[in-house]
Amino acid sequence: MLTVGVIGTGMIGQDHLRRITRVLAGATVTAVTDVDADLAKRVAEGLPGAVVHQTGEELIADPAVDAVVVCSWGPTHEQYVLAAIAAGKQVFCEKPLATTEEACRRIVAAEVAAGRRLVQVGYMRRYDAAYRALKAAIESGEIGNPLMMHCAHRNAGVPGFYEKESIITDTAVHEIDMVRWMFGEEISSARVLVPRKNRNGGDLQDPLLLILQTEGGALIDVELSVNIRYGYDIRGEVVGEDGTASLGSQSPVVVRGGGRVASPVPLDWRERFARAYDVELQEWIDSVASGGSPTGPSTWDGYAAAVVSDAAVEALRSGSLVAVSLMERPALYEVVA
Amino acid sequence: MLTVGVIGTGMIGQDHLRRITRVLAGATVTAVTDVDADLAKRVAEGLPGAVVHQTGEELIADPAVDAVVVCSWGPTHEQYVLAAIAAGKQVFCEKPLATTEEACRRIVAAEVAAGRRLVQVGYMRRYDAAYRALKAAIESGEIGNPLMMHCAHRNAGVPGFYEKESIITDTAVHEIDMVRWMFGEEISSARVLVPRKNRNGGDLQDPLLLILQTEGGALIDVELSVNIRYGYDIRGEVVGEDGTASLGSQSPVVVRGGGRVASPVPLDWRERFARAYDVELQEWIDSVASGGSPTGPSTWDGYAAAVVSDAAVEALRSGSLVAVSLMERPALYEVVA
Amino acid sequence: MLTVGVIGTGMIGQDHLRRITRVLAGATVTAVTDVDADLAKRVAEGLPGAVVHQTGEELIADPAVDAVVVCSWGPTHEQYVLAAIAAGKQVFCEKPLATTEEACRRIVAAEVAAGRRLVQVGYMRRYDAAYRALKAAIESGEIGNPLMMHCAHRNAGVPGFYEKESIITDTAVHEIDMVRWMFGEEISSARVLVPRKNRNGGDLQDPLLLILQTEGGALIDVELSVNIRYGYDIRGEVVGEDGTASLGSQSPVVVRGGGRVASPVPLDWRERFARAYDVELQEWIDSVASGGSPTGPSTWDGYAAAVVSDAAVEALRSGSLVAVSLMERPALYEVVA
Amino acid sequence: MLTVGVIGTGMIGQDHLRRITRVLAGATVTAVTDVDADLAKRVAEGLPGAVVHQTGEELIADPAVDAVVVCSWGPTHEQYVLAAIAAGKQVFCEKPLATTEEACRRIVAAEVAAGRRLVQVGYMRRYDAAYRALKAAIESGEIGNPLMMHCAHRNAGVPGFYEKESIITDTAVHEIDMVRWMFGEEISSARVLVPRKNRNGGDLQDPLLLILQTEGGALIDVELSVNIRYGYDIRGEVVGEDGTASLGSQSPVVVRGGGRVASPVPLDWRERFARAYDVELQEWIDSVASGGSPTGPSTWDGYAAAVVSDAAVEALRSGSLVAVSLMERPALYEVVA
Repeated sequence: MLTVGVIGTGMIGQDHLRRITRVLAGATVTAVTDVDADLAKRVAEGLPGAVVHQTGEELIADPAVDAVVVCSWGPTHEQYVLAAIAAGKQVFCEKPLATTEEACRRIVAAEVAAGRRLVQVGYMRRYDAAYRALKAAIESGEIGNPLMMHCAHRNAGVPGFYEKESIITDTAVHEIDMVRWMFGEEISSARVLVPRKNRNGGDLQDPLLLILQTEGGALIDVELSVNIRYGYDIRGEVVGEDGTASLGSQSPVVVRGGGRVASPVPLDWRERFARAYDVELQEWIDSVASGGSPTGPSTWDGYAAAVVSDAAVEALRSGSLVAVSLMERPALYEVVA
Repeated sequence: MLTVGVIGTGMIGQDHLRRITRVLAGATVTAVTDVDADLAKRVAEGLPGAVVHQTGEELIADPAVDAVVVCSWGPTHEQYVLAAIAAGKQVFCEKPLATTEEACRRIVAAEVAAGRRLVQVGYMRRYDAAYRALKAAIESGEIGNPLMMHCAHRNAGVPGFYEKESIITDTAVHEIDMVRWMFGEEISSARVLVPRKNRNGGDLQDPLLLILQTEGGALIDVELSVNIRYGYDIRGEVVGEDGTASLGSQSPVVVRGGGRVASPVPLDWRERFARAYDVELQEWIDSVASGGSPTGPSTWDGYAAAVVSDAAVEALRSGSLVAVSLMERPALYEVVA
Repeated sequence: MLTVGVIGTGMIGQDHLRRITRVLAGATVTAVTDVDADLAKRVAEGLPGAVVHQTGEELIADPAVDAVVVCSWGPTHEQYVLAAIAAGKQVFCEKPLATTEEACRRIVAAEVAAGRRLVQVGYMRRYDAAYRALKAAIESGEIGNPLMMHCAHRNAGVPGFYEKESIITDTAVHEIDMVRWMFGEEISSARVLVPRKNRNGGDLQDPLLLILQTEGGALIDVELSVNIRYGYDIRGEVVGEDGTASLGSQSPVVVRGGGRVASPVPLDWRERFARAYDVELQEWIDSVASGGSPTGPSTWDGYAAAVVSDAAVEALRSGSLVAVSLMERPALYEVVA
Repeated sequence: MLTVGVIGTGMIGQDHLRRITRVLAGATVTAVTDVDADLAKRVAEGLPGAVVHQTGEELIADPAVDAVVVCSWGPTHEQYVLAAIAAGKQVFCEKPLATTEEACRRIVAAEVAAGRRLVQVGYMRRYDAAYRALKAAIESGEIGNPLMMHCAHRNAGVPGFYEKESIITDTAVHEIDMVRWMFGEEISSARVLVPRKNRNGGDLQDPLLLILQTEGGALIDVELSVNIRYGYDIRGEVVGEDGTASLGSQSPVVVRGGGRVASPVPLDWRERFARAYDVELQEWIDSVASGGSPTGPSTWDGYAAAVVSDAAVEALRSGSLVAVSLMERPALYEVVA
């Protein structure tokens, strides 16, 4: 039984606590902490055997904690991940790995110095059954070499604190990681094209068309529509030399009524990716439980996503093509996928 | 942590052991047994902390076992379920509850005497996301009162020991339970219509069209094709007064290649219902863990399925309409669904 | 240019007039008649060069009429078809060929005596692109020998004059002809199963499940729902030894809105089968224009549909299986399809 | 009966001759001509009543010709269209209207001088049932203001004479016209993005991503894949403020076999757009038969398509954004759609 300490007991932290405690096998929560100590205490009440620590560093140092899950505010990720690496403990860090390229580089350096993978970043799409089937279809060779990908990332609406850059940093970042993994290549440039605005989005520049190109020349377009009302809809079609492969519809039910044949669309990302979160954390638990290394998104993946995301933000601001420049990849992170 | 003892460590038993140990939360396996003692011993080696018992009765009596999972050969189910009831322990029994109507009645009597639900039967379709969405669509009222249902149960092929009646007792029995649950009504008659034979099935009378009617007059047709080669395909459409609701396709991927747009069909029931088995057992663990009662298919459901299945077998043999006659339903089992 | 006289200028007659005049190539209307002489006159005003006859017999005798289209009231079909045969003129007769089995036999006898095919009956489904693709898929052998077929014939509602038997004689008769053509076999028995009633249908016994079996043992089930509100929906799936083939959805557009992905369902048969009517009449014109024989549904098909329809009506009344007994097929009508 | 003369009796000319003669109502072919006089003669043999003219001009001057269909080699379109305008005769001109912007302007000037619409250009997608349903869905307002459109134009392969620019001038030109019509706005800029090459295309730069923007800011991306082997596939999804609308699949049949559920993809544009060609020409015949004006794509549409196509070719060559500059629209051509 892997003992886990959770840093950050807000919405996503509570969701992971529920997951570890009530859904997944092989792990138990032994410690929690939060910047809001009262919240941490209340959350711990529902977790028999879990202690509350004053700080993340204290939690990481707790010998009753085998591995750490970081769900705190983004700007604090770096310090906890570095502390976990320093303590030689496995750490699962929610997106983003860190909020600046420099912070990501420091984590890369620390992990490389440690000599083994200790970090997994929470890009859960890699664990979604549909994305996995899509990747398997491509790898089967049945559509030939993949040349392009068309994606759409649609939200019914966005929260009040959502800003101009959020459409890249909060929304498109999922496609940025997914594309690197799907093609097994680094992204080399980003460009953002701007259609007329959706009235639902107020002043927000919504929708956008993000164009990514990989180092091998694959071209990816991503429609970002974050106030499209009708639901949460994630789509992807990879165009190969001999055919294409797309994410399936996966609707559990079809209703014929009122003049139409209709299937429901998920309301939000929780509904769409609930299982992916489960699988992600279960595979992490399984991989690190007996002293193994994580098999999921690495520090390098977190770093690359940050750099591409920065380039896309610059492309949104400038209207121009922005080249992506990555540091040399350490041997620890041999392949993208 | 619910401690579970598993009786029967064959294919399905091993699958449940893996599920409890590596997939689900809240339970741990503390004991196993099998008619093949060597097999039980080998299986137990992969389960730290699990002891091997000589008999099912011994396992049931073990104070380190809170609840029992019965995965042994069908004809032995009755004795273990009765023993568990006698011991006041919760028991999850794989299909069928028992192999004769009389045995089912004896279990009903024992559980009624015990005064509370101690038994859950393994009809996992009730836990499938698509069937649940279908039931929810009907209960929403959007298609009006449900009047008919069209089902298809298709297997690519069947094992060598499959006999003439198996198409009812092993295959159609899933639809028999599902229909009772979907409509919330008992089935009152069965009839079997016989098309020309599929050459893939040899001498087997395959396919069949099973016709069920509920006490309220809903009419259900079930195509049973058990050698249809192309895959495992479970379909269902409920016809209401104002529209219909169907199981969705749920294909994770769509490939455009070689002149067609295509989605994969599952190979077999394991692939199609893997998640339903997980959810089924997790909900059972959750419901009984703190001394609660199971919320899934009851002894009554197992009994009713047995009686309807017997009627369908007689209908297959006779070619006539066969009425279903159920005993009075004890108050313990108030509603069908 | 084939000169055509149209008997019956009601709704369907006017539709065929429009079709010949404004949609199809190779024919022109030279004469019309109707039991309502004023209606015929008004309709003729829109048809330059068309004369109005007092009776169908007079129209048939008109040397300016090469071929006859019969769209009058069903009970009058026999007399006009016989008159056309007597005159040696090609006749396209709307469904039904005649309203009794005896009348159909008289037409068979007359045409056999004439020694060549002069009659085509208006079963337009054989001209529908989807049904043709379905038949082609079966004939390609890719699903193996066809064993069963599941059909649904759903109407949003039915007109006031619709009676208990209409669900067979007006509605199911389309499937009766289609099944004979699809399987290339005669139907040997009919049975009708009765679910609980749809409140939308008032006293009408709606829906029904019609079960047909062919002489070769293929089993066909047809859901007949004629007050299902949501639209006009015609479905069919043929179950073969190795797979199945179904009518496609053919929706021209998919809308994602209001929480769902939806495609429109046709409102009524006019929308669904508009093109089939066009193709049907164009192929008839093409086949008979230069003295050729019609290639579509024959007198025999009209006769067989009448006999099976009578059997299904008896099955609806009696609740029992009713055998179908056909006369020996004259050599003029060599094959079903 | 509209009398039609056809200039150019090659593949597309013969197809239109067949259409007018054997499929559509209301027109008859009275004259043909071709640069290959022998070909014209052979073709005329199958057309009773049609004379063969030495030149297009002679055919246009023939008093037995009411209206002209131009199917000759593109560079000759201008002279025949101008001659028809000069003769005051309606002319249906296959794509392109003319091969240079200047030639298009000369036709605009001539038609404006004539004071009424005499020209229709053969953009047949506007007559496709799916595109029409898509436009109707947008105009219904159910998806809100349309902001973006995603298109794919895929060919299994292309003929030997296909050149680098053909992917714009022969292939994308259909989307260029369709987009103008769909959005009811002029296109104001074009850009071409270049992924890595498909090996099936040899040296050809295939696929491409063409990006168009309308004067109102709608952004359209068009995947152009002309050697994708699997079939001919035309897709389109309009993204609105509240939802999206897409072209439906329209597959006539679905086959479950060999482990998958599959629908056929059309082989080529003939199969996909056969009906659109019929409807296009029938509506043209209907609109001009009694001295009326054509309602389909105008000289202006032909001109605008030429200018946008030129811009896209320049964008392909330069890799840069190219602005589209149109002359002022004469009052004769009031709206785009």
